[in-house]
Amino acid sequence: MVPRKVYLEDIPLDEASRRFEAALAAADGLGPIGPERVPVAEALGRVTAAPVWASISSPHYHGAAMDGAAVRAENALGASEASPVRLRLGAQAFWVDTGDPLPPDTNAVIMLEHIQSFGEQIEIMAPVAPWQHVRSMGEDIVATELVLPEGKMLGPVDLGAAAACGCTHVEVRRRPRVAIMPTGTELVEPGPDVKPGQIIEFNSLMLASQISEWGGAPCRLSVTPDDYPLLKQRIETALGEHDVVVVNAGSSAGSEDFTARIVAELGDLLVHGVAVRPGHPVILGVARGKPILGIPGYPVSAVLTSELFVRPLLFRLLGSAPPERPRMQATITRKVLSPMGEDEYLRVKLGKVGNRVTATPLQRGAGVIMSLVRADGITLIPRFSEGLHAGTEITVELLRGPEEIERTIVAIGSHDLTLDLLSSELSKRHRGLTLSSSNVGSLGGLIALQRGEAHLSGSHLLDEESGEYNVTYVRRYLAGRPILLVNLAYREQGLIVPRGNPKRIGGLEDLLRPDVQFVNRQKGAGTRVLLDYRLKQMGVDPLQINGYTREEFTHLMVAASVAGGTADTGLGILAAARALRLDFVPLLKERYDLVVPREHYESELLRPLLEIVRGPDFRRQVEALGGYDTSQMGEVVGEVNA
Amino acid sequence: MVPRKVYLEDIPLDEASRRFEAALAAADGLGPIGPERVPVAEALGRVTAAPVWASISSPHYHGAAMDGAAVRAENALGASEASPVRLRLGAQAFWVDTGDPLPPDTNAVIMLEHIQSFGEQIEIMAPVAPWQHVRSMGEDIVATELVLPEGKMLGPVDLGAAAACGCTHVEVRRRPRVAIMPTGTELVEPGPDVKPGQIIEFNSLMLASQISEWGGAPCRLSVTPDDYPLLKQRIETALGEHDVVVVNAGSSAGSEDFTARIVAELGDLLVHGVAVRPGHPVILGVARGKPILGIPGYPVSAVLTSELFVRPLLFRLLGSAPPERPRMQATITRKVLSPMGEDEYLRVKLGKVGNRVTATPLQRGAGVIMSLVRADGITLIPRFSEGLHAGTEITVELLRGPEEIERTIVAIGSHDLTLDLLSSELSKRHRGLTLSSSNVGSLGGLIALQRGEAHLSGSHLLDEESGEYNVTYVRRYLAGRPILLVNLAYREQGLIVPRGNPKRIGGLEDLLRPDVQFVNRQKGAGTRVLLDYRLKQMGVDPLQINGYTREEFTHLMVAASVAGGTADTGLGILAAARALRLDFVPLLKERYDLVVPREHYESELLRPLLEIVRGPDFRRQVEALGGYDTSQMGEVVGEVNA
Repeated sequence: MVPRKVYLEDIPLDEASRRFEAALAAADGLGPIGPERVPVAEALGRVTAAPVWASISSPHYHGAAMDGAAVRAENALGASEASPVRLRLGAQAFWVDTGDPLPPDTNAVIMLEHIQSFGEQIEIMAPVAPWQHVRSMGEDIVATELVLPEGKMLGPVDLGAAAACGCTHVEVRRRPRVAIMPTGTELVEPGPDVKPGQIIEFNSLMLASQISEWGGAPCRLSVTPDDYPLLKQRIETALGEHDVVVVNAGSSAGSEDFTARIVAELGDLLVHGVAVRPGHPVILGVARGKPILGIPGYPVSAVLTSELFVRPLLFRLLGSAPPERPRMQATITRKVLSPMGEDEYLRVKLGKVGNRVTATPLQRGAGVIMSLVRADGITLIPRFSEGLHAGTEITVELLRGPEEIERTIVAIGSHDLTLDLLSSELSKRHRGLTLSSSNVGSLGGLIALQRGEAHLSGSHLLDEESGEYNVTYVRRYLAGRPILLVNLAYREQGLIVPRGNPKRIGGLEDLLRPDVQFVNRQKGAGTRVLLDYRLKQMGVDPLQINGYTREEFTHLMVAASVAGGTADTGLGILAAARALRLDFVPLLKERYDLVVPREHYESELLRPLLEIVRGPDFRRQVEALGGYDTSQMGEVVGEVNA
Repeated sequence: MVPRKVYLEDIPLDEASRRFEAALAAADGLGPIGPERVPVAEALGRVTAAPVWASISSPHYHGAAMDGAAVRAENALGASEASPVRLRLGAQAFWVDTGDPLPPDTNAVIMLEHIQSFGEQIEIMAPVAPWQHVRSMGEDIVATELVLPEGKMLGPVDLGAAAACGCTHVEVRRRPRVAIMPTGTELVEPGPDVKPGQIIEFNSLMLASQISEWGGAPCRLSVTPDDYPLLKQRIETALGEHDVVVVNAGSSAGSEDFTARIVAELGDLLVHGVAVRPGHPVILGVARGKPILGIPGYPVSAVLTSELFVRPLLFRLLGSAPPERPRMQATITRKVLSPMGEDEYLRVKLGKVGNRVTATPLQRGAGVIMSLVRADGITLIPRFSEGLHAGTEITVELLRGPEEIERTIVAIGSHDLTLDLLSSELSKRHRGLTLSSSNVGSLGGLIALQRGEAHLSGSHLLDEESGEYNVTYVRRYLAGRPILLVNLAYREQGLIVPRGNPKRIGGLEDLLRPDVQFVNRQKGAGTRVLLDYRLKQMGVDPLQINGYTREEFTHLMVAASVAGGTADTGLGILAAARALRLDFVPLLKERYDLVVPREHYESELLRPLLEIVRGPDFRRQVEALGGYDTSQMGEVVGEVNA
């Protein structure tokens, strides 16, 4: 491996799209894809390749619109309850059910309610107008009429209308065949047994799912190793057998990034590098008369650039317009800096707290796929903007329905595994209700409550003077607002150490040893407050501890650092140690409460959550985790500003 | 067939849903349906039946986040361009590509830009912090963390996250198996060769498509004739083999409506008759421990009641919440009377003309499936309301995206086949752009323009004084507004007669013959104005004409009446006669213009439409219809209030 110079460009998104579009428009055969005839019953979700004209009318005959007797209206003139008109069955009147064709020489239907039956005759007690209670031919669709235009995506009622007017088949666009080519010697199939250096290949799974959703026919090819001649040969084969080729990873300008070179050799390399984030190393080209795209390897980049370039391409081939996502206005809760030169797609969590919808930025790394799993929406920070100030009104493209966002309980604060359990239980028992929890530490949670960004906050803030939990801090940060403290659990905090505790760490004093590498929690986290309190009691200068400045945001991240060997120990809870099969040196038991403003405590939204916290099932599940004391679970252990 | 008493109830919708829900909650095994394990790659759109917890972290090792050299940060302290630090390759520094695992005893990556290579050694020209440019283990997902809650419908990124954390399979809800049982002796398969009295069975197609879209596994059973023992036996079989049984038609109380009786015999008949329109004869029951529904036979009723009852049932079985449709505020353009006792679901077309979104009611008949095909949305007129006043602000549940409504050209006025052609051409050439045309006659169109409800209006209004088309009327109805008249075509109006003209109709004077049954157009239609003008010139009292008061709304409906034999003749255009293979007695040529307010004429929205009207392709297509003179097609033939 020899490092080479970096050639990646920074083409603005609109310019990149324009170049691609122009090349597709210029290339022969890159308009809407060829049609195929499919049975109406198999056409759901397909796009019409030709208008559908009615070949017969619907209804195709005059039929009864009521159960009753078909008559000639002229024969029932003047009928009333006082002077009924008698008609002979089988000659002047005929029993009909709804939908039956009118017998010859009848032009109206008398309702059952206005008929008395006398064997061979009936008595009619009300007159009818001609064509009354008749469903006349062509009432719905008249033969030759336009039923469905070209380029329409077919839904259930469209299929019904096509069938109603005599169609057995419809002409639809063939599903564009898209080859997805994962590349990289290090890629392996998903599974629990992977070795360091092996990368689980799941981008092709996401890309294929997107392509299916967009109406394409994805084909996931097997992994191609980083081997230039082999990759080139397989790309050529793929171009021959598919309508579009998507090469995943290898789109940058590293020593094993061959795609751009191969595209240039086989056709026109239109774009290499687009000024979007996440997403930068994107390749757009046309080769052998087919569109070919290089999509970056980071999963969030892969998903977003596929949205930006593969989606419009597929709809173009289908001769249809891509639907837009619903949008919502929201207020961004934090300042976000964004590079001037790039369009940035920021993932946000949305929450409706009171009457305001707030957007909280999620992790921005291109590798954090959970940022998309957790996201409620995406907002664009345009090029030439330096970012967003806290409090800015933004437009968010929604990934979930607005009603789901209204039915979301927003928890911002300290993280605990019990919150994950609670979230899962809530969704399970109350369909459509979700608990969204962001982990910013206990103090961050109180600030979020102060700003009206959350319904509740997990907190374990020790008052160093009184030894009491949460009350002092709530009084300080949420002055004047009535707040309830609902205990979730007492939990053990201690030092998480590798299995077998190889460095024989027994207490906080061991953190000062030169051979011990520590990993800390972020400022404001309850665990950090606790550590600093103890260190102060011990008279220790925290900066004497190796790794004191390295901060992680959750208990599990701390445990992962220990498990991964980048730290020897960190302060955290037993559950996190157990989860990664690590050992644990218990130091103390602390109280973990939900801090809930009274207006939310009493709301319909939170009631199901509080019920779960107070029920026996949830308690059993938390106890099964170990390291928790649930004796006060669900109890109101404090009221502040009552 | 003997008429029987009608037993249908009028249970309010909320009460009906409540009864059904209570019975399902009480029945054993009617909670969420059993889980099944499916490969992650096949789980798109499925609903999780258990939470997904991470079995490994992602990334599962510390990897390079940049192409460059992995080092121990401590070894690069103080490096700068002025005093670079030299490190030995293979001992102190290691080339890495993005994603490579960090070699043992390294903790940072130096970017290529800051490295000079000298064979066995490299020179580093910038320092790094520990863990800089490293993607650390668990950065995305930490082992044991909650990845996906129970009850989540899986999208592309969810599958990616599951695979990333080591899952090969996920537990999802089995797709509920829904038997769809069309019933009715008269039902036949779709096709162009149907006989009077045969009804094309397409409801099961629509119901199956809906059920697929909602995550169920529909099974369309073959048609069961109206035979009580056979139907009962087949319902019993269906209850044994499926999770839900939907019986279509036979849900009313007619002489061949057996479903309610069978449900009562096999289990509990909970509801028979719901106060919704369209939809009234609905059956809800539980039999043999399975939900069973009777859905009415009219297609619009079938689709809407399936939405109201089958959809929530399926989502209940899937343990998930049904997504809501986006909504939009709109102004209703006409007065709508609605029965006090029923919830009415009114289909509307939406149009954004200027800054206002208007909703125009579509046909309300339960048999008019095209009212759903054409609908942009549905609005509820609640029980206890007598209807809507024109100008009322309503909330519309959208069937199309808001952006599609913005890209819709609204034509309200006289109908002509060329408008159908134009609509199809527009959608074909301009993806996402649609022409929505409502047929209310020429005068109705001018009133719609006056009220700001349309962008343009098809019109052929003859001034009886001047012999001129449209100008006088536009001046009267659109006083002061600059309007352009764009000619679409000249067309022949004449008497549409059956093939061979059996009654030897030669002109308007024949309409007075007692053996001739006429069918008229509605008041305000250009054709009607023309007829009344001629009759006046002839000194004829219109009421002497048989059928003068029977009105149809389009040329094709008039032709269909003649083809169906309910009228002997009607005034209309050649194209309509040809379409139904009828004969035509030409009487005169008239001008058919598009009436376009200047502000719309000059808008971006209308430009593509005007281009098509002025192009040679469209002209050729219109000429092929016959009966049109396209010599002035697309020309501005008049300017009013300029």
